Amino acid sequence: MSIRVGIVGISGFGGGEAMRLIASHPSFELVYAAGEASAGSRLMDRFSGVPDKLADLVIARWDPATLPKLDVLFASLPTGASAEALARVPEDVKVVDIGGDHRFVGGWAYGLADVWPDQIRDQRRIANPGCFPAATLTALAPLLAEGLIEPGNIVIDAKTGISGAGRGGDSKFGYAESNENLVPYGLLRHVHMPEMAKAIERLSGGSAAGLVFTPHLVPMTRGVLATIYCRGRTTTDACLDAARRFYAGRPFVRVTDKPPQTKWATGSNFAFVSYAADPERDLVIAMGVVDNLGKGAAGQAVQNANLVCGLAETTGLDGTPVWP
Amino acid sequence: MSIRVGIVGISGFGGGEAMRLIASHPSFELVYAAGEASAGSRLMDRFSGVPDKLADLVIARWDPATLPKLDVLFASLPTGASAEALARVPEDVKVVDIGGDHRFVGGWAYGLADVWPDQIRDQRRIANPGCFPAATLTALAPLLAEGLIEPGNIVIDAKTGISGAGRGGDSKFGYAESNENLVPYGLLRHVHMPEMAKAIERLSGGSAAGLVFTPHLVPMTRGVLATIYCRGRTTTDACLDAARRFYAGRPFVRVTDKPPQTKWATGSNFAFVSYAADPERDLVIAMGVVDNLGKGAAGQAVQNANLVCGLAETTGLDGTPVWP
Amino acid sequence: MSIRVGIVGISGFGGGEAMRLIASHPSFELVYAAGEASAGSRLMDRFSGVPDKLADLVIARWDPATLPKLDVLFASLPTGASAEALARVPEDVKVVDIGGDHRFVGGWAYGLADVWPDQIRDQRRIANPGCFPAATLTALAPLLAEGLIEPGNIVIDAKTGISGAGRGGDSKFGYAESNENLVPYGLLRHVHMPEMAKAIERLSGGSAAGLVFTPHLVPMTRGVLATIYCRGRTTTDACLDAARRFYAGRPFVRVTDKPPQTKWATGSNFAFVSYAADPERDLVIAMGVVDNLGKGAAGQAVQNANLVCGLAETTGLDGTPVWP
Amino acid sequence: MSIRVGIVGISGFGGGEAMRLIASHPSFELVYAAGEASAGSRLMDRFSGVPDKLADLVIARWDPATLPKLDVLFASLPTGASAEALARVPEDVKVVDIGGDHRFVGGWAYGLADVWPDQIRDQRRIANPGCFPAATLTALAPLLAEGLIEPGNIVIDAKTGISGAGRGGDSKFGYAESNENLVPYGLLRHVHMPEMAKAIERLSGGSAAGLVFTPHLVPMTRGVLATIYCRGRTTTDACLDAARRFYAGRPFVRVTDKPPQTKWATGSNFAFVSYAADPERDLVIAMGVVDNLGKGAAGQAVQNANLVCGLAETTGLDGTPVWP
Repeated sequence: MSIRVGIVGISGFGGGEAMRLIASHPSFELVYAAGEASAGSRLMDRFSGVPDKLADLVIARWDPATLPKLDVLFASLPTGASAEALARVPEDVKVVDIGGDHRFVGGWAYGLADVWPDQIRDQRRIANPGCFPAATLTALAPLLAEGLIEPGNIVIDAKTGISGAGRGGDSKFGYAESNENLVPYGLLRHVHMPEMAKAIERLSGGSAAGLVFTPHLVPMTRGVLATIYCRGRTTTDACLDAARRFYAGRPFVRVTDKPPQTKWATGSNFAFVSYAADPERDLVIAMGVVDNLGKGAAGQAVQNANLVCGLAETTGLDGTPVWP
Repeated sequence: MSIRVGIVGISGFGGGEAMRLIASHPSFELVYAAGEASAGSRLMDRFSGVPDKLADLVIARWDPATLPKLDVLFASLPTGASAEALARVPEDVKVVDIGGDHRFVGGWAYGLADVWPDQIRDQRRIANPGCFPAATLTALAPLLAEGLIEPGNIVIDAKTGISGAGRGGDSKFGYAESNENLVPYGLLRHVHMPEMAKAIERLSGGSAAGLVFTPHLVPMTRGVLATIYCRGRTTTDACLDAARRFYAGRPFVRVTDKPPQTKWATGSNFAFVSYAADPERDLVIAMGVVDNLGKGAAGQAVQNANLVCGLAETTGLDGTPVWP
Repeated sequence: MSIRVGIVGISGFGGGEAMRLIASHPSFELVYAAGEASAGSRLMDRFSGVPDKLADLVIARWDPATLPKLDVLFASLPTGASAEALARVPEDVKVVDIGGDHRFVGGWAYGLADVWPDQIRDQRRIANPGCFPAATLTALAPLLAEGLIEPGNIVIDAKTGISGAGRGGDSKFGYAESNENLVPYGLLRHVHMPEMAKAIERLSGGSAAGLVFTPHLVPMTRGVLATIYCRGRTTTDACLDAARRFYAGRPFVRVTDKPPQTKWATGSNFAFVSYAADPERDLVIAMGVVDNLGKGAAGQAVQNANLVCGLAETTGLDGTPVWP
Repeated sequence: MSIRVGIVGISGFGGGEAMRLIASHPSFELVYAAGEASAGSRLMDRFSGVPDKLADLVIARWDPATLPKLDVLFASLPTGASAEALARVPEDVKVVDIGGDHRFVGGWAYGLADVWPDQIRDQRRIANPGCFPAATLTALAPLLAEGLIEPGNIVIDAKTGISGAGRGGDSKFGYAESNENLVPYGLLRHVHMPEMAKAIERLSGGSAAGLVFTPHLVPMTRGVLATIYCRGRTTTDACLDAARRFYAGRPFVRVTDKPPQTKWATGSNFAFVSYAADPERDLVIAMGVVDNLGKGAAGQAVQNANLVCGLAETTGLDGTPVWP
C-alpha cells in the first residue's frame, strides 16, 4: 500500500534530500512538491538525477489551500516561514516540519526519534530537531539519562558543513570565500540554544542554565560534529556502556570507541557517538556526528514519518554511507 | 532467491563502493570479502557505517584456492595483480573484474553495459571498463554508431576526482598537496588509451589511430568529466537526437541539452552525456560525466553482474544521486 | 620616490589582489580606493589583514570626477562597467584596466606583458588580458612565433578556479553547490574567444578561424590551466627549446619539462608553460598555468604598471608562490 | 649586510614556508638547505616557483658536522629527530627550532615572540611554539596576565588544516580520505598539552592542572583556530580592552570584535584574537587564529630570527594575507 507524501521547500537542501530518500522509499509515493523560486519547473529541471517516475512532477507554488490529498507532508521552509502556513494544513495530514518553527511548541512532538520514539508514534505533528541538536542530544542523552554528567555545566563546540547554512544564501557562503576558511559564528546567541536547553532539561530533569554553544562553519558540504565538554566523575568505559545500553536495539545510533568522523555518516541516517572521560578531573567529553542533511534533517524526518505511519523505523533508510 | 557474491580488494575505493551497493541489493548477499592489508579485520572495523548484517564478516586474505561457494566474484585489484589469480577462480563463478587487466582480452567480455548489454548477458567473465573510458565511450558511442564523427580524429580532455588515483597511495595525493591543485598527467601515454582506441574501433568500424587523451587530477573526491573534441559536419540537435535514439529505453544514460556537471552523478550509476556542434567548422564537442566509483567502477560492475545473473539491470542501482 | 596609485573595484577579488600587491610594492603608494557596495568603509573593515599604513583609508564611491591626483589607476570593474567611466579619467593618469572592456580596442595597448613589453612601455592606457588568455597565449606564443603550429587549428580546453567567476556572485557559485563539482560552461560562445583569436592572429600573422575554447569551473579558489591541442609536425624538445628562447631573460615565465600544476603559481605572478608533441601524428599539446588573480589579473596589472612607470618589471612582484 | 641562514628539513611544509619567507627577506641570505629524501636535488626541482637566485642551491644531506658558516639555522624536523643533532651545531650559530623537541627545555628560550620578545632577543637557542599553542596562548595571554580568567579551568577546542599533520604522511591524510571529513583526535593526550600548560602557568603564575585540549583535523590546507572556554567574571569589552593594551605596539597580533576566521591569516604572520564573555555565567570564550605554517611555524621562526639578529621584528614579514 502506498502512502501519499508531499514536500514543501523542495528546492532547498533539506527538501532535496527528502526527495532523494522518498524516491527510494518502498512505501512512500511522492505526489506533491512545492517551492517558491522553482514553482512551475519539473523535478527533472531541478534535479538531473531524479528517478524517471518523478521526472515530470511539476513543482507547485506552495499554498496549503491547494494541497492534494496527502498522508504525510514534509515541510522544509526557512525559519519563520512555516508556522502560519502549516496551521492551515488539514488535521488528517501528518506533518513533519524539518524547519525550526515548531520545536518545543504546544501540539507538536519533538522528533528526536532515536531517543523518544514512543512520544512520536501516535502524533500527527512532528517538529524535527535542528542539525546541531541532533548531533548533540544523541551524544548527551545516555549520560543525562544515567546522571553521569551535570546538566547545568555543558559546553558544546559544534562544527557544521556549509550546506547547514541553507541554499542560495549569502555571498559569504560563496565557494571562494568559504573554501579554506573556518568560521566561528553566533557566539552566545545561536538560535539552536533554547531547543538544546529544553531537550537537556527533559532528558535530565535538571536545569541547563549554564549551557554554552558555539557553532563553526567548516569548509565541507555535509556533516556535523559536536564536541561537548561536560562535568561528571566517570570513566570512558562507563560512558560507552551507558550509550550501548541506551541505544540497544536502536538501529541508527552507533556507539564507537574511536572519535567519530563526519565522513562516516555522509548520505546516511546514522549518528555516531563516542566519549572520553577523565575521572580525576571530573571531565567528560562527548562527541556526536551526523550528516546534517541526513539524521540532521531529511533522514530524521523520514524516520519520524515512518514512526507516525506505523512502519518499521528503518524503512527506506538502510542505505550505507557514501565513502569516500 | 539469494545470489552469493564476494569482493576481492575490499579495502580499496572500488571494492568499498561495491560493498555499499551490494549491501542494498535485494538479490545479492555478500558472503566473502578479501583484501591484503585489511585481512583479519571485520568489515565494521574498516567501514563504520556497514549494515549490521555485514558488520561481523571477517576480511579474508585473498587466495583463489580458498574461495567459498560463490555465484559472482567482484575483483577490484591494482593493475597487474589480478590476471594470474583470477585465472584460478573456478569456471562456474561469474567474475566481474573492476581492475584493468582483462579489458579486450580473449575470453573476457568488455563490460560497457549501457552500450553492449547483449554481449555481456551470457558471459561468465566480464572486464569492467576504466572510469575514463566509461565517461568517454558513453558520450561517443551514439556519434560513432551513426557516423556523425570521424573515429580517427578524436581528442579527449579528461578530468577525474582524486579517488580515481586509488587509495593509500602516494603522498603526492595527500590532502595538502592535492587541494587547490589541478594536475595534468600521463600525456601521450596513459594506460587507458589502448582500451579506448579498441572500443572506438569496435563502435565505428574505423581506425582510432589519431586518438589523443590527456587526463587531469581535479581537487575533488569523486567524478569524471570527459570533454571530447571531434570532427564531423553535424549539429548539436542531431547529436542529441542520435544519443536519445541510441539510449532509448536504457536506464542509466541521461542525454541533456545542458553541459553535464560531475556532481549530478555522485553516488549513482548514471552517466550524463551532452553535445555542442558547429557545422561550419566541422566541430563536435561531446561531454560525458560519471561518478568514477559508480558508473566508472562499482556501479557498472553491479550492472554487469545483474546482466550475467539474469536480473533487471537496475536491480539495486536505482538510488538517486547524492546532492549537494 | 613614491608613485601615487588608486584602485577602482577594491571589493572584488581582482581589486583585492591588486591591493595586496601594491601594499608590498616599494614604489607604489595606495592613495585611493573606490568601490560600490563597500563605499564608506575603511579598508580594514573589508580586509582584516591590510597593513597598518592602509588600514584607515576610506573606500570612496567610484566617480572619475572626484579622483585625487594619481599617477596610476587600476580598474577592476565588471565587464561593461568601465568603458564610459574610464573615458573620463584625466589623460595624464595612466590606467591599467583589469576588466574586459578595452582589450583590442583602439587607443589601448594589450597588456600581455611577458610577450609584448615593448608595446606597453610608452603607453598610458593598458588593457590587461583575461585570465584564460593569459594562460593560453603565454603557452602558445613561442610556438606561433616560430611557426611550429597552425594558427587556424587550435583547441583550448581551459579550467579555472571559482574566484575566476568573480565575487558575490550567483548562488550557483555557493560552496555547497560548487564543492565536489566540475562544470563545463560557455561552450562555443565564451566572451574570451575574440580576444584570444585576435592575439593568436597578431602572434602568427595567420587566421585563427578554427579556434575552439571550452572553459570549465574547477572546485578550487585560484588557478587556471589551459590544455591546448594544436597541429604541427614538431617534437616536445623543439617546443621546449622554442619557449626557452622566446622567454630568455623574461622573469615571470617558467618553461618546464613536467606538466605544470596550478598550485605552482598560487599567489605569484609566474606563468608555467610546458609541451608534449608527437610528430607522427602532427600533434602538439601546449599547457599554460597561471594564478587567475596573479598573472591572470592583478599580478599582470602591476607588471604593466611597472612597465609604464619605467620601473623594473619585477618590482613588488618577486614573491615566491604560496605552497602548499 | 647579509645574514647567512640555513634550513634543515627543507622538504617539509614548515621548511618550505621558511624558504618562501627567507627568499623575500631583505637581510637573510639562504646559503644552506638540508633534507633527507630530497638530498641531492636542486631547490628548483622541489619548488617550481623558487626565485632564480635560489634555484640552483643543492639540498644537502643533513649533518651538523658539515654545516657551512652560518649565522642562523632554522630546523624543521619531525619530533624526536632534532634534539641530538642540534646539540652538535656550533654554539655561535643561532638556532630556531620549529620542531617540538626543545620547548620548555633548559637552555632554550620559548619563542612566543608576540608575548615574550624580551626573553628571546639575547638568546642563541629558540624553541618555536607549536601551531596550536601559538593560536591558543596568543589569545589567552592578555586574560591570564590581567587575571581575568582562572588558569586552572581552561578548555581548548582546536581545529587545524591538514598541513599541520606534516607532509608525506599517512594515507589517512590522503585527499579522498580527508576531504569532506572532520576528525577529532588525540583526546586527553595530545603532545601539545604540556607545552600549553607550562606556558599558561608562566603567564598566570597559577596552576593549569585542569587544562583540556581537543584537536580536530579540518578539510583545508592551512589555518588554526582555537576556541577556548574559560571561567571568569568579566565582559567582552573588558577582554578586548585587555588584549588591546597587552598587544599595543605589537605588530602581528590583531584584536578584533568579530569572531576571527582562519582565512584572514593565510600566508601571513598575523594572529587574530577575539573574545565573547557572559559575566552572568562566569564564562569567557577566547578565540585565536593563525596560519599554522605562518605564525604557527615559519613566520614565527623568522620573527624570532629577526629578534636574535637585532633586526626589526617585521623585517621580511610584512606581506598581506592571501585572500581569497
